[in-house]
Amino acid sequence: MTLPRHVIVVSDHTGITAENMARALLAHFPDEDLTYALRSFVDTPDKAQAVAHEVAVLAEQEPRPLLFTTITVPEVLEWLREAPAVHFDLLSQSVDRLEAEFGSQATRLPGRFHDMTDQQGYLRRMEALDFALATDDGVGDKQYGLADVILVGVSRAGKTPTSLFLALNHGVRASNYPLAEDDFEQLSLPRPLEAHRAKLFGLTIDPRRLHAIRTQRKAGSQYASLEQCEYEVRRAERLYAQWKIPVRDTTSSSVEEIASGILNYLR
Amino acid sequence: MTLPRHVIVVSDHTGITAENMARALLAHFPDEDLTYALRSFVDTPDKAQAVAHEVAVLAEQEPRPLLFTTITVPEVLEWLREAPAVHFDLLSQSVDRLEAEFGSQATRLPGRFHDMTDQQGYLRRMEALDFALATDDGVGDKQYGLADVILVGVSRAGKTPTSLFLALNHGVRASNYPLAEDDFEQLSLPRPLEAHRAKLFGLTIDPRRLHAIRTQRKAGSQYASLEQCEYEVRRAERLYAQWKIPVRDTTSSSVEEIASGILNYLR
Repeated sequence: MTLPRHVIVVSDHTGITAENMARALLAHFPDEDLTYALRSFVDTPDKAQAVAHEVAVLAEQEPRPLLFTTITVPEVLEWLREAPAVHFDLLSQSVDRLEAEFGSQATRLPGRFHDMTDQQGYLRRMEALDFALATDDGVGDKQYGLADVILVGVSRAGKTPTSLFLALNHGVRASNYPLAEDDFEQLSLPRPLEAHRAKLFGLTIDPRRLHAIRTQRKAGSQYASLEQCEYEVRRAERLYAQWKIPVRDTTSSSVEEIASGILNYLR
Repeated sequence: MTLPRHVIVVSDHTGITAENMARALLAHFPDEDLTYALRSFVDTPDKAQAVAHEVAVLAEQEPRPLLFTTITVPEVLEWLREAPAVHFDLLSQSVDRLEAEFGSQATRLPGRFHDMTDQQGYLRRMEALDFALATDDGVGDKQYGLADVILVGVSRAGKTPTSLFLALNHGVRASNYPLAEDDFEQLSLPRPLEAHRAKLFGLTIDPRRLHAIRTQRKAGSQYASLEQCEYEVRRAERLYAQWKIPVRDTTSSSVEEIASGILNYLR
């Protein structure tokens, strides 16, 4: 029996970029048995030395640990370069090339991307999150005029996670409106949506998947029944077609994938 | 006058990792005038050819565009390698090294990290988001027993964005409880928190910053007044000290930074 391989991800800031990169790389090796550790805010030589020591302890076992770093401060990186691991220095080489291309010096300060350097962008995201929460699940429709996009779909099609993700990560003012029984009994668009047709974006989902999701919430209910799910999805899709609303199937898509698709559409 | 430099980020999937990487690198050059474009889901040679064409058009102007790619599918990447730009191939080299280290072939399929391959992790995140929404802003305190962490703080100290971020991005079941007037008039912990002392995490903020944030929401109100903000923050900090609740100052921290700090604490 082989032990799992240790993956140590080290960042001088939040570690979000570092962890994403390491996981994106290692996703190409789905059969490897890996165990992850993230060390964030490693921004001094002392902290780096402590992590290097930790790596050295792990390296006493086979196989060798994999060490991913996004650190660019030379005095900090130095310690990690000496650690007994396979080292993936994810930024340094590209920073060197950018220095050459720009003909200027990189700051090589600890990671600044996820901080508040971009104050305006940050405020926009926080403000969009407030907006998404205030217009979640059909409430606050008086504010739809201020929305960038209004997600439409039946209950549990993925509207809320997607609108919160769009707001929090991209500063998009995303509202969402749940389609329900009442909306299917009329031929017109639901009244709160009428004036905002150009902002609508429909989410649909395989009725069987919807049935599974709803069953987890309310097993045995009419709401969760396959018949009800089939009915709602069919009627929702008819509404999208009738009003020429762009649609995305969320059945096997993650929130990140759905959100990226919507961003492409908005651009 | 020089034109801004075009930065084109190309991914065969959501582009989240690619964009984070490009921005993390370019954050080291704050004085450069850059304009970003993201091309996501570029997963066929045809789509890559279209992007290469777009780059060629931009390259007719000085300075040369910067092209960042996280594509590992050889037939797709090929087109972008030929584009007239400074090319930063962010993954290929590391994938090669990992192949050598593992002694196995990389899948080199389009990005799989932000999809639903990790079903269990994905469901945990969605479930955590439901939980965070159901226990946001002091509601649903009956469910605190199921929380991983309960953020405590005065109104507008950053509790809601942080708990939603922790849930959505990390699958942490984060609740949040707003400290208000009533809570300051007693010597005990607020009743809903009493049984969960070990899960509490306090957020604090500079009263002047809080005053500015609240003024944006309700200018001229008692709620937004500097005196009120000073009073609330002072009392909240006294409560943290009294009950030995770990505290984090959010004044100049982003949600990502606060969340990473809390994750470190939880580990």
